[in-house]
Amino acid sequence: RPRREVLFFPSQVTCTEALLQAPGLPPGPSGCPCSLPHSESSLSRLLRALLAARSSLELCLFAFSSPQLGRAVQLLHQRGVRVRVITDCDYMALNGSQIGLLRKAGIQVRHDQDLGYMHHKFAIVDKKVLITGSLNWTTQAIQNNRENVLIMEDTEYVRLFLEEFERIWEEFDPT
Amino acid sequence: RPRREVLFFPSQVTCTEALLQAPGLPPGPSGCPCSLPHSESSLSRLLRALLAARSSLELCLFAFSSPQLGRAVQLLHQRGVRVRVITDCDYMALNGSQIGLLRKAGIQVRHDQDLGYMHHKFAIVDKKVLITGSLNWTTQAIQNNRENVLIMEDTEYVRLFLEEFERIWEEFDPT
Ligand SMILES: [Zn+2]
Ligand SMILES: [Zn+2]
Repeated sequence: RPRREVLFFPSQVTCTEALLQAPGLPPGPSGCPCSLPHSESSLSRLLRALLAARSSLELCLFAFSSPQLGRAVQLLHQRGVRVRVITDCDYMALNGSQIGLLRKAGIQVRHDQDLGYMHHKFAIVDKKVLITGSLNWTTQAIQNNRENVLIMEDTEYVRLFLEEFERIWEEFDPT
Repeated sequence: RPRREVLFFPSQVTCTEALLQAPGLPPGPSGCPCSLPHSESSLSRLLRALLAARSSLELCLFAFSSPQLGRAVQLLHQRGVRVRVITDCDYMALNGSQIGLLRKAGIQVRHDQDLGYMHHKFAIVDKKVLITGSLNWTTQAIQNNRENVLIMEDTEYVRLFLEEFERIWEEFDPT
């Protein structure tokens, strides 16, 4: 049965160090001395779904400032996963955006120039799993807002969202 | 095969009068004298999915100011569909919000009081179809932003989102 899941937020604030340092391992008594809970949360599940990427990751995100999600994306890039990011120029300029760090790390980023917002919040993992919902990738949203994120292994939806990604990717080509 | 669809925005600006005056009819040469195109659009498809409701409609929306979507919801209420609306208090207070009109029409509305945003943007039609995505129900978003809205006939997702709706509905009970 193909994966069909939903994560609701706000997420409990948990420690995600184990996940970001040794991705793939289940969480557990990691010996981390911090005082946060070391259990699963909506954020840790989202991180886990992203860190499962082996070949490609497309991100199409209005806002991206969560340090944990930023680290996860950099980790994937270091592992050789082909990461492409589309974002909105208005949010990109704000304090705390991860976009500058991703660019510095050598990740391809494109953004809009026009009046409307690039308001999508989706990710495609290995051209196989679609992650989409209401959640902007900010700590504020993760910890305080009521949000939903669907995680779906669905050939048809992946195809349609990948087409949307490629359309926008071409349109935002700066050259 | 259960319905599984996605609408991408921005939507072409089309006339939705025929749909809102004689719901259920296919669009066509309606004799409407206005100068807008009378073809299908993402907005008309969204309206059509909502207007299919026969018994219940749950709305959980961060922002709701689109006059067309407001009229559709009022139409359903007049037809005897049980409509319940959850929204965010911050957006509700803004100019152009449909929430006041819905309340005046006798539709039940509840909203949050707390710091985080009620940032969901979903609807459940007849406890059978889930409509969810990145789109806030504003004309600005519909006509200018890049957005997605999934329309899914999916028992499991409908159950999970309905549970989320009822949780928030109870929590926002003002009494
Ligand atoms: Zn820790
Ligand atoms: Zn017309």
